[in-house]
Amino acid sequence: MQFHDRPRFPRGFRCASRNVGLKPTAKDLTLFVSEVEANAAAVFTRNHFPGAPIVLGRETVRAGRLRAIIANSKCSNVATGEQGIANARRMAAAAAAELGTSGDRVLVSSTGVIGVQLPIEKIEAGVRGMAEELSDDPLLGAEGIMTTDTHPKALSTSVGDATITWVAKGAGMIEPNMATMLAYVFTDAAFEPAELDQMLRVAVHVSFNMLSVDTDTSTSDTCALLANGLVGRVDAAAFQEALTAGCIRMTEMLARDGEGAQHLLRAKVRGARNEYEARRVAKSLINSPLIKTMVYGADPNVGRLLMAVGKCDDLEVDPSTTDAWINGFPVVRGGVRLDFDDAEVRATLGAEVVDLEVSLGAGEGHAIAYGCDLTQGYIEENAAYYSS
Amino acid sequence: MQFHDRPRFPRGFRCASRNVGLKPTAKDLTLFVSEVEANAAAVFTRNHFPGAPIVLGRETVRAGRLRAIIANSKCSNVATGEQGIANARRMAAAAAAELGTSGDRVLVSSTGVIGVQLPIEKIEAGVRGMAEELSDDPLLGAEGIMTTDTHPKALSTSVGDATITWVAKGAGMIEPNMATMLAYVFTDAAFEPAELDQMLRVAVHVSFNMLSVDTDTSTSDTCALLANGLVGRVDAAAFQEALTAGCIRMTEMLARDGEGAQHLLRAKVRGARNEYEARRVAKSLINSPLIKTMVYGADPNVGRLLMAVGKCDDLEVDPSTTDAWINGFPVVRGGVRLDFDDAEVRATLGAEVVDLEVSLGAGEGHAIAYGCDLTQGYIEENAAYYSS
Repeated sequence: MQFHDRPRFPRGFRCASRNVGLKPTAKDLTLFVSEVEANAAAVFTRNHFPGAPIVLGRETVRAGRLRAIIANSKCSNVATGEQGIANARRMAAAAAAELGTSGDRVLVSSTGVIGVQLPIEKIEAGVRGMAEELSDDPLLGAEGIMTTDTHPKALSTSVGDATITWVAKGAGMIEPNMATMLAYVFTDAAFEPAELDQMLRVAVHVSFNMLSVDTDTSTSDTCALLANGLVGRVDAAAFQEALTAGCIRMTEMLARDGEGAQHLLRAKVRGARNEYEARRVAKSLINSPLIKTMVYGADPNVGRLLMAVGKCDDLEVDPSTTDAWINGFPVVRGGVRLDFDDAEVRATLGAEVVDLEVSLGAGEGHAIAYGCDLTQGYIEENAAYYSS
Repeated sequence: MQFHDRPRFPRGFRCASRNVGLKPTAKDLTLFVSEVEANAAAVFTRNHFPGAPIVLGRETVRAGRLRAIIANSKCSNVATGEQGIANARRMAAAAAAELGTSGDRVLVSSTGVIGVQLPIEKIEAGVRGMAEELSDDPLLGAEGIMTTDTHPKALSTSVGDATITWVAKGAGMIEPNMATMLAYVFTDAAFEPAELDQMLRVAVHVSFNMLSVDTDTSTSDTCALLANGLVGRVDAAAFQEALTAGCIRMTEMLARDGEGAQHLLRAKVRGARNEYEARRVAKSLINSPLIKTMVYGADPNVGRLLMAVGKCDDLEVDPSTTDAWINGFPVVRGGVRLDFDDAEVRATLGAEVVDLEVSLGAGEGHAIAYGCDLTQGYIEENAAYYSS
């Protein structure tokens, strides 16, 4: 699929970002706005301690209609009790007042430190006037929602007359279950909320839900799809294909920009007994600290690869039908290490993208998982991250 | 339970260690010997790619009788096919010839690089004469089986007239399932093989099976219990209690000496609906990279604690009944962060042992998991570890 050279918004969508004093100088408050109400669907974290914005968001999205998204960084409004929920409602209401809509048409996202009450007055004061600053550059909004990301992440593509635009943030505490930390998808195509919900779930299943930076599932994960219908209906199959492809590409961008990462790591598993088992093994590969450090160290360590497949001890794995490849080079056949050219394979591990492939020889199940290497940068970032 | 100030062997057990040229100068071949045949039980890794010594060991232990253990480091004899099995048998036979017994009375262990054939001639030549070097210091054997461990690990205690002695190695690729990498337990008490098997499983369930350095399950994990009966029968309940306590203490020593670790991390979960769920949550805490880096960074980050409990999304967790403590200080009540003295809690995180405790308020299930912090040392060690 072809993405636009520079990401742009679908018709009717714009955004604005500001520093409102949550962080010293960086942008910390962002609005995404559709000039007309959009049909919408969203999926959220399955973590048992969802943030107040997630609790509220589940309620808001039930109506399937959104005018705007308001997102702040620095404070996640998680583990904040009743006051947290009240603050999330005030945040939605403040954006609604600025845009001339009602609070139940505004999706709220907050990311950052857990267990601290939202500085809601700063947000209420800060949002005033943002409607006049709306821009048609999605990268501005992508910058506004960044936390430990090293660059803003936005993509767009065309489907018939319609445009689809993705804006996301990632970096750490990322093994989403239902969605990544924050990923917003905007389109001017027209679909019903139930269709959007279905299409979003199909796309997320093979993209954000196969992403893991560090096995840790955030309490704030949100992925929302807004369709304002300004260009009318487009072919649903083509839309689904583009939606899935863009979600996968954004997943790769989030994995590559995982905290401290220097490589995008992809694990492709085929020949599993079923899709569930393929996903389990692919995730086991992507999440193994010994594989992640091996990629960082550029070492074609076949033993770690077999170890990570074999440790899925609740699945049936037959070593005698297990083959494996590193960056296309065959390294294992029938569970036994092949006598490959070590230096040649090692050299390919310098590339930005590292592909591991495993064939289990047991069936038709296949899956791809997306991750990154584990480096000193991850440790530094997270050992130095002070919660207060 | 009281351990001896300096570990010693039970009656009739001795060991020897040598460098036989697998490593440049460090000891790389070790024998543990009982002067009479011992009843024995063992548990092994559940990894689907077990090393040749595991395949052979399962067969050997079925008879419930052992005279000796022979262990080499540097090469794990995993993913080596039929030749690997043949080499493991030759290794057992070489030890048996040296000791005047048969190969099926010798347990073989190999750890080190995966996918390389064992230099079996060096081992066969190297073992000759070791019977004359047998020492009564278990630390010599503990030193001989070390790989990336920073110190040899042995313990002993008394139960009535009997002695129990533990010798183990750990460090990396450690989330055992059925046993840790290598842990040998020797006693001069008399028990039948079936009793030993049962007692070993009870002890391993709450000790080595609750240990995780890095979530990665080795292909070589072995835990064996040898009872040569030289002091006769002792009280079985007292023996079980001592066996379990020693396995837990050894688990703590392995966790504390995890690759790069600076802290022993213990996660205690109670109030779960059942033991399975308590174990799941405790393991989730111990395995979270964000908790492990928070311990390394000495930051009382309550959000990461809740995140790691909440990400067990297949369990039922009720935030409103969830309480948590860091080193005994209450930090969460009813799913909401308490207003604790941050500096005070932070100061306790400097201690060598860090205790996290979570009460789920849902039932009587409880468990303790053992792990360590995640540091630059782990990355350096594993990114620099070359497989060939």
